[in-house]
Amino acid sequence: MATIVHFSALSTTRLCLKSHFKGLARSCESTFILSGSRGPSQPLLPGRRWFSRGTGVRFMSHGTAGGQSAGRSRRGALAISGAAALTAAAAVAGLLANGNHFERAEMATRISGAVENREQEAEIVERCRRFMSAPVTDISVLQSRKEEMRTKMELLIMETQAEFCKALEEVDGGTFKVDRWERKEGGGGISCVMQDGKVFEKAGVNVSVVSGYLTEEAAKQMRSRGKVLKGKDGKLPFSAMGVSSVIHPKNPHIPTVHFNYRYFEIEEEDGSKQWWFGGGTDLTPVYIDKEDAFHFHNTLKEACDKHHPQYYPDFKKWCDRYFFVRHRGETRGIGGIFFDDLDSPGQEEAFNFVKSCARTVVPCYLPIVYKHLNDSFTDEEKDWQQIRRGRYVEFNLVYDRGVKFGLATPGSRIESILMSLPLTARWEYMQEPDKGTREAEMLEVLRNPKEWV
Amino acid sequence: MATIVHFSALSTTRLCLKSHFKGLARSCESTFILSGSRGPSQPLLPGRRWFSRGTGVRFMSHGTAGGQSAGRSRRGALAISGAAALTAAAAVAGLLANGNHFERAEMATRISGAVENREQEAEIVERCRRFMSAPVTDISVLQSRKEEMRTKMELLIMETQAEFCKALEEVDGGTFKVDRWERKEGGGGISCVMQDGKVFEKAGVNVSVVSGYLTEEAAKQMRSRGKVLKGKDGKLPFSAMGVSSVIHPKNPHIPTVHFNYRYFEIEEEDGSKQWWFGGGTDLTPVYIDKEDAFHFHNTLKEACDKHHPQYYPDFKKWCDRYFFVRHRGETRGIGGIFFDDLDSPGQEEAFNFVKSCARTVVPCYLPIVYKHLNDSFTDEEKDWQQIRRGRYVEFNLVYDRGVKFGLATPGSRIESILMSLPLTARWEYMQEPDKGTREAEMLEVLRNPKEWV
Repeated sequence: MATIVHFSALSTTRLCLKSHFKGLARSCESTFILSGSRGPSQPLLPGRRWFSRGTGVRFMSHGTAGGQSAGRSRRGALAISGAAALTAAAAVAGLLANGNHFERAEMATRISGAVENREQEAEIVERCRRFMSAPVTDISVLQSRKEEMRTKMELLIMETQAEFCKALEEVDGGTFKVDRWERKEGGGGISCVMQDGKVFEKAGVNVSVVSGYLTEEAAKQMRSRGKVLKGKDGKLPFSAMGVSSVIHPKNPHIPTVHFNYRYFEIEEEDGSKQWWFGGGTDLTPVYIDKEDAFHFHNTLKEACDKHHPQYYPDFKKWCDRYFFVRHRGETRGIGGIFFDDLDSPGQEEAFNFVKSCARTVVPCYLPIVYKHLNDSFTDEEKDWQQIRRGRYVEFNLVYDRGVKFGLATPGSRIESILMSLPLTARWEYMQEPDKGTREAEMLEVLRNPKEWV
Repeated sequence: MATIVHFSALSTTRLCLKSHFKGLARSCESTFILSGSRGPSQPLLPGRRWFSRGTGVRFMSHGTAGGQSAGRSRRGALAISGAAALTAAAAVAGLLANGNHFERAEMATRISGAVENREQEAEIVERCRRFMSAPVTDISVLQSRKEEMRTKMELLIMETQAEFCKALEEVDGGTFKVDRWERKEGGGGISCVMQDGKVFEKAGVNVSVVSGYLTEEAAKQMRSRGKVLKGKDGKLPFSAMGVSSVIHPKNPHIPTVHFNYRYFEIEEEDGSKQWWFGGGTDLTPVYIDKEDAFHFHNTLKEACDKHHPQYYPDFKKWCDRYFFVRHRGETRGIGGIFFDDLDSPGQEEAFNFVKSCARTVVPCYLPIVYKHLNDSFTDEEKDWQQIRRGRYVEFNLVYDRGVKFGLATPGSRIESILMSLPLTARWEYMQEPDKGTREAEMLEVLRNPKEWV
């Protein structure tokens, strides 16, 4: 019987270095593909020059609440850019060696500010290098508003996408197909899909960053609490961004996982901004494995507990309520956490909580994948998985707010919305497992959600 | 290359006699199953006595606009009950031979009325014998209100179900599983499903007859034109019934077919009744076959043209509009006819039109099934079928009014609503057929609906 092996710091670092190189190669590839589609001589992204210039900058901490995986990425980045950073520092020292005392002092101040700015800018570039593609927003724009929440969130969701994709590629041996797409009305996204891999039947990790104008009615519907917002001539400028993912493995003993972390900003008539976060991570096994369930929920609980003792119990319940296939009287899976409309205690605190959650995705799921990687299964177990996939489709198409909102929104990218659907699914008439079977045990849990921690 | 062979009168009669015997056996079987579930000594249906009494009655025409299949059924019934009918006629003649002239005349009148009634009642019983199960409404109730539209319609939908199921069993060699179910709030249904057959992956033919009370708001929503109805204390007694079917064959060269014919009645505060019919038949091929498309549409057109020259063109357009997967920008299939809210020119005329449509289901579809029965196909063609099945699921779960209404209605039978979903379906990310392929040709038609007749 396989058991859960937690990632060690060592293996994580190794993984990260490898991913870093892969990520770099991919960034360039993506850029070329995009340039190609606009004609070879027309650079699409301001960041492109950066990628080809071979910039080397010193790694600099940026004061975020570092989770396990944040530490990982930074270690990776430091290892790569260490030598180049030294060169940059030497250049600054060389400049300072010229000119008289006052000039030198003044210049030192100016240079020091400029260097700090350059370092921060370089840091954004360095972070972008590790993404699956250049971010949706131009790097120069991100640099120009690096203190804003939408910049911090865009970088976080891009990082989460890259980290998760690389971990999945590592276990599968396959490669994600990376699609950048633009939305006519503003913004766009990056969809990463691996289909019919060795381990994963269908794995999709999607980032989208969109902006535009909402009607007051639409703005009201976007918030689960339905708050009324006042717009200029009834229209409200908005920004919405998020990372979302659904992973359907082939082996029925490896559960499906889903996560989504998102941020909204709406500007009211008087210029004040309404903002909130939403998100969650939940597991949909085909068979119950109590150890997996404990590991998954406990990892989420630990991430939540760092921020508020009520987060885990409240968001666990919310998750069970949200992922409920009403017409079947059963939950979609064994839950996890789900929250929406989070706008307290403050923007930074809320962001830090979301960051902790996003960085828990890999440690929540990957140990479970590795544990069951070589589990054997029967045709009957595969059939049961296919039937559960059918229920997954039912939830996503009938109830999921994100899918419904997406399908009803003109100009949204349907393939990215529906990439959450499994490669294959099955509907058998009046299928009901026999009493005492493992299938019946699974249904029992879905009909009566349990506490796992 | 296979070609369409239309059913001849001869083969139809043969089919019908065979089906008749099968149907009889099944009716008894269903009755026993039901009695069994309520204890063996408790007769469930008043009609059960009739079935075991072996009543023989003379066949009597009942003045309906006879379609091809109506003629068929009658021929079958006549052949079976001929001998018994003669016995009944002799008994009446014997009665008339006694008593004096006046008494005899009076008695003859009374007996003639009684005989007519008995003949009409016997006729209902005889029709019920050919159904897949006893009808939802007690036979004694149907007999007591045999002139009402809801009785005529219930008999028609039961007949349509039986006729279609028997034709499918004939081609497949499999047998439909017949489930009777009851609705706590009033009424119930009969679901016939054949799964994983030789020809059909999943074939479902469902009858439901429900009644109860609607709120004024719900009543408004039930009519596509949203007419406001006034109820007693805001509540409106209603009756709704229909037959609906979706057939998913295994061979990708045999198209999926769907049909649905329904009748609604709502009683207003002043006792007046609002009634309307709805329905349609449409085809969803995986590959375009122009001959099939012509046959299907032309058969529907001929049925429509008998009633109104505008029915086919109007209802063909309505069908293309209704079965539209908006987020994909494509129709579900190549259409057929679709109509709702039909309450003119009169109730009998509207019913006769619906009857013509219902009796066109077998001649629309079965010739296409026989034509492609032995067509060979590749793995790639099977994959394309599975992807189209995924689109079918998308339409049914996201847009279909019947499914949405059903899933949202407490107490509705989910398995019967979702039996329209295929046994298997597939979603590939960014699947788009190459130009010039038969798959691209299919998509082109779905994106730009055509006139086939």
